[in-house]
Amino acid sequence: MPVIDPWEFKEVKDYKELMEEFGIDDFSQYAKKLKGAPLEIKRKLVIGHKDFSKVYDCIGKKQEFAVLTGLMPSGVFHLGHMAVINQVIYYQKLGAKVYLLVADLEAQLTRGISQEEAKRIAIEEYLTNYIALGLKNKSLVFYFQTKGPKKVQEYMNLSKLASAKTTFNEVKTIYGEITPQKLISALTQTADILYPQLEGIKTTLTPVGFDQHPHASFTRDIAFRMGFSLPSFTFNKLLPGLQGINTKMSSSKPESYIALTDSEKTVSNKIKKYAFSGGKSTLEEHRKKGGNPDIDISYQYLKFFEEDDKKLEKIYNDYKSGKLLSGELKEIAIEKINKFLKEHQKKREKAKKLVSKFVLK
Amino acid sequence: MPVIDPWEFKEVKDYKELMEEFGIDDFSQYAKKLKGAPLEIKRKLVIGHKDFSKVYDCIGKKQEFAVLTGLMPSGVFHLGHMAVINQVIYYQKLGAKVYLLVADLEAQLTRGISQEEAKRIAIEEYLTNYIALGLKNKSLVFYFQTKGPKKVQEYMNLSKLASAKTTFNEVKTIYGEITPQKLISALTQTADILYPQLEGIKTTLTPVGFDQHPHASFTRDIAFRMGFSLPSFTFNKLLPGLQGINTKMSSSKPESYIALTDSEKTVSNKIKKYAFSGGKSTLEEHRKKGGNPDIDISYQYLKFFEEDDKKLEKIYNDYKSGKLLSGELKEIAIEKINKFLKEHQKKREKAKKLVSKFVLK
Repeated sequence: MPVIDPWEFKEVKDYKELMEEFGIDDFSQYAKKLKGAPLEIKRKLVIGHKDFSKVYDCIGKKQEFAVLTGLMPSGVFHLGHMAVINQVIYYQKLGAKVYLLVADLEAQLTRGISQEEAKRIAIEEYLTNYIALGLKNKSLVFYFQTKGPKKVQEYMNLSKLASAKTTFNEVKTIYGEITPQKLISALTQTADILYPQLEGIKTTLTPVGFDQHPHASFTRDIAFRMGFSLPSFTFNKLLPGLQGINTKMSSSKPESYIALTDSEKTVSNKIKKYAFSGGKSTLEEHRKKGGNPDIDISYQYLKFFEEDDKKLEKIYNDYKSGKLLSGELKEIAIEKINKFLKEHQKKREKAKKLVSKFVLK
Repeated sequence: MPVIDPWEFKEVKDYKELMEEFGIDDFSQYAKKLKGAPLEIKRKLVIGHKDFSKVYDCIGKKQEFAVLTGLMPSGVFHLGHMAVINQVIYYQKLGAKVYLLVADLEAQLTRGISQEEAKRIAIEEYLTNYIALGLKNKSLVFYFQTKGPKKVQEYMNLSKLASAKTTFNEVKTIYGEITPQKLISALTQTADILYPQLEGIKTTLTPVGFDQHPHASFTRDIAFRMGFSLPSFTFNKLLPGLQGINTKMSSSKPESYIALTDSEKTVSNKIKKYAFSGGKSTLEEHRKKGGNPDIDISYQYLKFFEEDDKKLEKIYNDYKSGKLLSGELKEIAIEKINKFLKEHQKKREKAKKLVSKFVLK
C-alpha cells in the first residue's frame, strides 16, 4: 500500500488508483444529489468519501450532525484552502454544527510557530476569510488545540488514551517514517475528530484534502477500537499550483499560489507569467491542433469561479478546438478570479468587524 | 549502556555498577548531613542522586523548593512503597511544597484501570496511608493526571510540546522497546516532573526507586532542551521481596510483600514461611559459622524499623557470629514490624476522617 506523508505531501498523479488502494468510495452520486453545493463539489474536486451516507441521511432527515475542520495557522490563505472551508460553510447552511479548531499545537510542534503568532494568523488571516466566505457564528464551536473545547479535560485525555489503541507497526504502515512529535500530532488530530462525540453528536463529517487521508484512516481505526462511531470523511483533490497540474500550491512559494489578499495586478501578473498553459507553442499550431484544458491551470482554476455550466463548457470546447487562445483563456481566468477577489475583499473588511464575536464567545 | 524497563522492572544485582554507568552520584555525604532523616536515608536505601546539591542549598537557605511524587493506583500499599513517601514527608517537614499526583492516566494506559477505580484506590489505599505516615495538608498540591493541576492547560500541553524535543532513537536508547502508550506515559511523567516550574518553583526533587531511572534521565534531557531548570532526583534501592535479596515486592504476589494492612498473624506467617534466611541449614553449622545478615530478608527489613543503631549493630553481629538464630531474628523482625503496623493502623483510622480535606481542597 502506498504511504502518504500528510506533513510533507508533494503530489498525486493518479487519484483513482489511490482511491482504490485506500478503499475510498467515489463521491459522484452525492455530488449530483447535493443541492446548492459549492463548485468544489459540483465540479468534482471532491472525489471520494468514507461513510458519507450517514451524513447524507442526517441531512435528509434533518438530524443532528457535526462538520469539523482544523486550520493550520501558517502562511497566507490561498485558493488551495478554499475547497474545505467552502464545504464546511455549505454543510453549516444545511444544519450542521461546525467545530472549527486552530491547530496551534500542531503548528508549534511541526513548524515552530509560537502560540501567540498562531493565534494572530488564525484570526487575522484565516477566520476573517472564513467569515467573508460565509461562515456563520451560529452552531459554531471555535477552539484552539492548546486551550481545548468545552470538555477540555476529556479532550486532552482523549489523545492520550488513544495511544493505547495503536502500535508503532500500525503507525509506520499508515504514516511511513514518524517522529514522536508527529505521533502526538496524529493523536491530537484523532482527539479533534472524535471530540464532537463526547458532546453527544454521533455523526460527524471531516472534509479533507487527499493528503490528509492517513489521519482519516488512523482516526477511524482508533475510533472503532475505542467504541466510538466511525467518523465520516470527504476527500478532495488538491487545487494545483500555478506551475502545473501535478504541482502544489505552497504557502512558502508565492509564485505557486493566488492568495485571497493578492491585488488585481498581482493576480494578473502571476497568471500571465506562471500559470502553466495547455496551449500549443505557436499560434498556427494552436489554431490547428487546439489546446488541452485538462492540463491548463487557468482552465483548472476557472472551473471553481465560473458558475455557469454552459459558459464553462463552451470555453472548454473552444480551447480544445483551437478557437480560444492561451492568452485569451488566461484573460478570462484573470477577470473571473479578480471579480471574485474584489467582492471577497469587500466582505473581508466587513468580516474584520465581526471576528471578535467569533473568538470571544 | 544497560537499559532498564521502568514498566517491567525485575531486579538489580549491582547498584554501584549501574550508578557508574548512568552517571548517578553517591548519596552518602547527604545521608550523613541530613538531620532527622528517615531510616531509608540513614540506612542507605537511598544511594544515589542527580543534582541534590540544589535541593540541599534550598534547605540550608530556607529557599522555596518542591518535592514531587506520583502514586500508581494499583494493588495494595506495601512496605516497598514506603521509601519514597517517607522521604517526601521528611522534605515536607523541611519546608518543601509537595506535589502529589495520582498516575491515573498511566494506570489506565498501562494497566487498564478505570479512572473511577484509580480514584478509589488512590484515596482509600494510598492517600490514607500517606496521611497516617505523616503527610500534611499544608503546602500540598494533590492532583490526578486526567484532571490536571491548577494550570491545567499548560500542564496538558507540556507533555505534548515535550514530544518535539526527543527522537525515537533516544527513546529506544533510554527505554528499550517502547509502544505508543509507553511514549505517552513517559511524556506525561515528564510534564508531571516539570510542572512545578510552571508555578514558578525552580528547584524540584523527585525521589524515585532505581527502576524509575529512565524517566529521570529522559526528563532531564527534555528539561534542558525546553529551557527548564534541570530537576533533581534521588534514587533508592528497591526493598527486596520476601523471597530474597534479588527479588521484588510485587503487588500481584501476596507472598512477596508485607502490606500495611496485613494483620499481625499474616505478618508472622509470611515472615516465618517466606522470608529468605541468611542462616545456615543446621543449628550446629549456624552456631559454628554464623549467618549472613546481608542476604537475610528479616534483617534487611529490620534496618527500616529498628531506630536504635546500637541495637541493630548488635543484631547484625550476633547473627553473623551465630549467636542469634534465624528463627530468633525472624521473631525480632516480626515484633518490630507488627509494632509499627499496629500504630500505623490506628493512625490509618484517624487518617480516614482527614482524607476528604486533602481531596476536596
